[in-house]
Amino acid sequence: MIKQFLPALEAEINQMNLGQNPNELYEPIRYLMALGGKRIRPVLSLLTYSLFKNDWQNAIQPSLSIEIFHNFTLMHDDIMDKAPLRRGKATVHEKWNDNIAILSGDVMLVKAYDYLNEAKNIDLASFQYLLNRFNKTAAEVCEGQQYDMNFENLSNVSIDEYIEMIRLKTSVLVGFAMELGTLLAGESKEMATHLYQIGELVGLGFQLKDDLLDVYGDPVKFGKQVGGDILANKKTYLLIKALEQAKGDQAAELSHWLQASNSIPSDKIAAVKQIYTSLGIHTQTENAIKRYFDQAFELMGKLEISEERKLSLQNFMAGLVDREV
Amino acid sequence: MIKQFLPALEAEINQMNLGQNPNELYEPIRYLMALGGKRIRPVLSLLTYSLFKNDWQNAIQPSLSIEIFHNFTLMHDDIMDKAPLRRGKATVHEKWNDNIAILSGDVMLVKAYDYLNEAKNIDLASFQYLLNRFNKTAAEVCEGQQYDMNFENLSNVSIDEYIEMIRLKTSVLVGFAMELGTLLAGESKEMATHLYQIGELVGLGFQLKDDLLDVYGDPVKFGKQVGGDILANKKTYLLIKALEQAKGDQAAELSHWLQASNSIPSDKIAAVKQIYTSLGIHTQTENAIKRYFDQAFELMGKLEISEERKLSLQNFMAGLVDREV
Repeated sequence: MIKQFLPALEAEINQMNLGQNPNELYEPIRYLMALGGKRIRPVLSLLTYSLFKNDWQNAIQPSLSIEIFHNFTLMHDDIMDKAPLRRGKATVHEKWNDNIAILSGDVMLVKAYDYLNEAKNIDLASFQYLLNRFNKTAAEVCEGQQYDMNFENLSNVSIDEYIEMIRLKTSVLVGFAMELGTLLAGESKEMATHLYQIGELVGLGFQLKDDLLDVYGDPVKFGKQVGGDILANKKTYLLIKALEQAKGDQAAELSHWLQASNSIPSDKIAAVKQIYTSLGIHTQTENAIKRYFDQAFELMGKLEISEERKLSLQNFMAGLVDREV
Repeated sequence: MIKQFLPALEAEINQMNLGQNPNELYEPIRYLMALGGKRIRPVLSLLTYSLFKNDWQNAIQPSLSIEIFHNFTLMHDDIMDKAPLRRGKATVHEKWNDNIAILSGDVMLVKAYDYLNEAKNIDLASFQYLLNRFNKTAAEVCEGQQYDMNFENLSNVSIDEYIEMIRLKTSVLVGFAMELGTLLAGESKEMATHLYQIGELVGLGFQLKDDLLDVYGDPVKFGKQVGGDILANKKTYLLIKALEQAKGDQAAELSHWLQASNSIPSDKIAAVKQIYTSLGIHTQTENAIKRYFDQAFELMGKLEISEERKLSLQNFMAGLVDREV
């Protein structure tokens, strides 16, 4: 079943007709949506829906609301971060310009609501609850992005602050993906909240895995430059942990690399990675990832649903821990 | 009754708690919403609701969705247009920065949906229709803004193209305001579409009145600089009409002022205004405004509602034609 989800989602994305004119507004949306990605969020929504019901095809359109929303955030975040590339291709504001990326993104956000509005077989109270949860999640994702930008100008960010930032910026949407699948299947708010919590934990583990792969990923498999976060002095879980734990010469060396402006990129990556490794940051991060996923699986275990029915979702979750890309 | 609408709307705006943290995200929203404005769109929604029902208080929150949406478009348009001032105060991107204006605007758009979600006493099909209409309108407003930006780089814009642009950028939202009031009152789609059409005509007349006041407004009453559009070479109804009709020396003179880069502002305004006046553009624009409002009143006349009930809305519409600000 899960093997059908991605092709079905891609087929729906390919035939999406969000609008035509003016072309400046709609072409960037088609461009970004066609750049691909793993479509993790709508797949999670369909997997969760399938815990309860078999007719997952009915959940495709509302589930895509999250994918459109996610891509909207990428379009706007890339402007704010002045990012030149997204999935190896020019970002929208680079290929067109900032104004077009602002306005196309705005339309994308509106279109996300159009897809959410395709939710059927649901009563008004449930639909308004769904919309309320979508809105809350969407606002939180924006809050997370603002904190992320604020962190760039702060010298000290604690692990707790960092976790709260990635919870808002990344995890709540993964949580909502699973909540959405539950609500679309006609389940209760309580059940939806339980699945939301699982998704939130998965999202936290997922983001820490991202941080880890950026440093320790296999350059051949990873697809983007390993060490990019180190070069950008990005305050990741690994860097914050290292800043907390480095003492004496090691602290001085880390500080030196963070301030070095003319260093050779490969030298900086190798040196910081060496500091991480000698402090045991790799293992600490893996342990943190494992903790989040373990908690998620524990909550999965509490669901009174047959193991057989849970299998696809649990396999998919396990794949997010083990991934190398 | 209508005298209570504006204070009730302002009270609700003042007590809005859209969010607190991070402050960078929510402070700009409070700032922009507090800058005032005539709140024409939610007032029109309440007036239309009151054609059918008396409990207009129940329509306040969903009606404010349009005001929040409208202010969201102002926040983002001001970035795109590099506008320094809005209602005489620094724009959000000027007072903070572009990134904050992008992200605060995004949250505002989400919050508009939160207020729309306060629609009560309505069935699911009606609510989903309402959401669908809101989305369509929101996308069209973005389309209008894109056409407006495109027009800056076009030497020739026809009156038809201009009218279509202002229809999208301004009128559809005025139309939707009246449609929303109708749907919130539990009326049929057909009735809502009829009121939408009235609003669309009002919106067109309203925008042409804006174009006219920018040139012929009373400097004391107008509140912003008379002639601003002329100085910016903005392709308004008046300029497009003048470009169509000016011949020989007058065409050359108009062309001269449009290309003059170092002219004295008051000279340019006086000269272009003189060309408009001698071509009769003032009267032509007034006639066009009158045509739109006449059509709107004609459609009002077809409504099978007592004249007494229609009075407040009709007086308000008449006020939009006669306004000097």
